[in-house]
Amino acid sequence: MVIRKPPAAMLADSPDEVEAEFYEALREGDLERLMAVWADDDAVVCVHPGGPRTIGAQAVRESFEAIFANGAIAVTPEQVHRLHGDSSALHHLAERITVRTAEGPRSAWVLATNAYVKTPQGWRMVVHHASPGTLQEPEAVERPSTLH
Amino acid sequence: MVIRKPPAAMLADSPDEVEAEFYEALREGDLERLMAVWADDDAVVCVHPGGPRTIGAQAVRESFEAIFANGAIAVTPEQVHRLHGDSSALHHLAERITVRTAEGPRSAWVLATNAYVKTPQGWRMVVHHASPGTLQEPEAVERPSTLH
Repeated sequence: MVIRKPPAAMLADSPDEVEAEFYEALREGDLERLMAVWADDDAVVCVHPGGPRTIGAQAVRESFEAIFANGAIAVTPEQVHRLHGDSSALHHLAERITVRTAEGPRSAWVLATNAYVKTPQGWRMVVHHASPGTLQEPEAVERPSTLH
Repeated sequence: MVIRKPPAAMLADSPDEVEAEFYEALREGDLERLMAVWADDDAVVCVHPGGPRTIGAQAVRESFEAIFANGAIAVTPEQVHRLHGDSSALHHLAERITVRTAEGPRSAWVLATNAYVKTPQGWRMVVHHASPGTLQEPEAVERPSTLH
């Protein structure tokens, strides 16, 4: 087994900055850049669409390594819904993924929950949970509360 | 449209207590008890297996009301993985759901991310993201880090 160096430090000032870096790393297929986004912790959790859950930074790294073996991912976050606290943040969003088909490029969408925590090294990703994709653009059911 | 009373207050001392109450309410098919678990906030998010995302306590209530119209849910949380902060908590788990089939009861599993925040009213649920179910018990890919 190859023991790797810890990922390069990334000092992110906000959850949005970490998230932008996460999707940029996916689009670049850059594993080191991607892992620098994650908290280097055995407790982080990642679920790829339709996949098992991977727990711990090392297992997450291996899962993305396997994905990148097939190339980068043409993914853009859309419809980002944010719940921010002082030291933790939850983003819920739709990932638009461009897939090549015999009929040309098509868009697929994946619903994802991303969680971030503020660490001494800045904001880091701790959870990425992505549901299996659909070919329809997801609609959010949103209803302003009548209660307050 | 019927304007409902806010859900009864629930003073939960811990994320685990909220989570236990959430699954108990699902097993009971008790909408009021279920909604008392959620933060009464327009920012909460819920994704049912294979469903759209519902945003806001009122939309979440309506989604569970539609589900309970078909009865309660025989669900048990398993393999709970916790990331706890001072005022927020993330749980990732497998929900075992017993479904009736022509061949008798069978188990299905759903991967879920649940998020909780500490509010002045105690701990409340703010995110429930459930992926579509499988008939295989999910295995977690977990690898202790070699890095520290």
